[in-house]
Amino acid sequence: MSSGKHYAKGSSKPVLPDDGQLRLFSMRFCPYAERAHLVLNAKKVPHHTIYINLTEKPEWLVDVSPLLKVPALQLPAEKGQPSLIESLVIAEYLDEKYPQNPLLPKDPLKKAQDKILVERFSGVTGAFMKILTQGTGLDDYWLALDIFEEELAKRGTPFFGGNKPGYVDYMIWPWLERLAVIGLYLKDEYNFDVKRFARIAKLIELLKADDVVKSFYATPEQHIEFWQSRKAGNANYDLLA
Amino acid sequence: MSSGKHYAKGSSKPVLPDDGQLRLFSMRFCPYAERAHLVLNAKKVPHHTIYINLTEKPEWLVDVSPLLKVPALQLPAEKGQPSLIESLVIAEYLDEKYPQNPLLPKDPLKKAQDKILVERFSGVTGAFMKILTQGTGLDDYWLALDIFEEELAKRGTPFFGGNKPGYVDYMIWPWLERLAVIGLYLKDEYNFDVKRFARIAKLIELLKADDVVKSFYATPEQHIEFWQSRKAGNANYDLLA
Repeated sequence: MSSGKHYAKGSSKPVLPDDGQLRLFSMRFCPYAERAHLVLNAKKVPHHTIYINLTEKPEWLVDVSPLLKVPALQLPAEKGQPSLIESLVIAEYLDEKYPQNPLLPKDPLKKAQDKILVERFSGVTGAFMKILTQGTGLDDYWLALDIFEEELAKRGTPFFGGNKPGYVDYMIWPWLERLAVIGLYLKDEYNFDVKRFARIAKLIELLKADDVVKSFYATPEQHIEFWQSRKAGNANYDLLA
Repeated sequence: MSSGKHYAKGSSKPVLPDDGQLRLFSMRFCPYAERAHLVLNAKKVPHHTIYINLTEKPEWLVDVSPLLKVPALQLPAEKGQPSLIESLVIAEYLDEKYPQNPLLPKDPLKKAQDKILVERFSGVTGAFMKILTQGTGLDDYWLALDIFEEELAKRGTPFFGGNKPGYVDYMIWPWLERLAVIGLYLKDEYNFDVKRFARIAKLIELLKADDVVKSFYATPEQHIEFWQSRKAGNANYDLLA
């Protein structure tokens, strides 16, 4: 459960050792940033993490993230110290650059199918946001999740990546980690059907025991505490710091 | 200027020769589908095109495109005759599967930077839609296009792909082809600044002379005629058929 203090407006840019290590600009509770943490940890790539207060963004964020979003990954060892943005681009870059523990299939067709699956996960992420902001959309959430239950059945393996977690597993995990948040939020209305989602339920259990997932796990209670502080206009970024 | 009749609701699924050729499901004026046409043509991959009426979609579209969108690319020679969706996934799949005339750089960093650039082009595509549907957003369009002018200056080459068109060039071309449509639509309000966008203006000129672009080119007048028919609720899909 790694974390750190979040840099805000007015803060000085952190001075990091000149060790050539990658620099990940993140926010502890951002599911998109979590994707980058998971890939870095899956590949055991040494890196520095700089956490960003997304309500009051530090002035120097623009130097590494032109749209002021996280995650951003700076590559100090490359000419011009360029930065990458977009969680999926970062994930694929890391998977190509660091071949250990490969996440995406090498076969172009299987690779394309994994990417399409992650694109289709926007049905789940969209429904999740709607539930948390408007209190509605649970049925849409389950309908979007059906596709993933069916795909696991089709693949016939415990993980989307086969017998171990792969690209799809880590790219969708941040929202599976937050599934129980919906339960805490909607209370009695929450109707997760363990029969309908038998494979997804098992996948969640397996991923919770995965070392990579454990390296950046937060509990549903922590997630909802952060969410409620954010909703109240006083986001508690440093909850885990 | 290839085209064909668009299949609508109630139509029979076209019977195609059992030749193993790729099948592209498209709409003649869809800029996302155009991306797939351009990559197929850039690589000279033999394929069949099935044009789809997107207002009255044929019932059988769901078999190849679960979200009923174009482009979809069916692969009849692969086991189970799977289909791919999402224009960028299709483009990257084709680039990996058919190595001739490579479009994306092989270097992971350069590849990631090209992909980020295409993601950032959503600023242009979003502004384009706003101009055509609401009549506003021209300033946002130019601001989003500035990034591409600057990037061309930084790269110091006529095309984003270097001395010939590459991934970025073909992925953004469909909207550059439609730039003059804004002129026809906004008339006197249209203020393309050829000084501000000197490199983009030159790029448009060069791409208009490119054989791949020419293979699927439609004029601004044709685009606006289609657009106006669509706006009037009577989309003339077969305008070029």
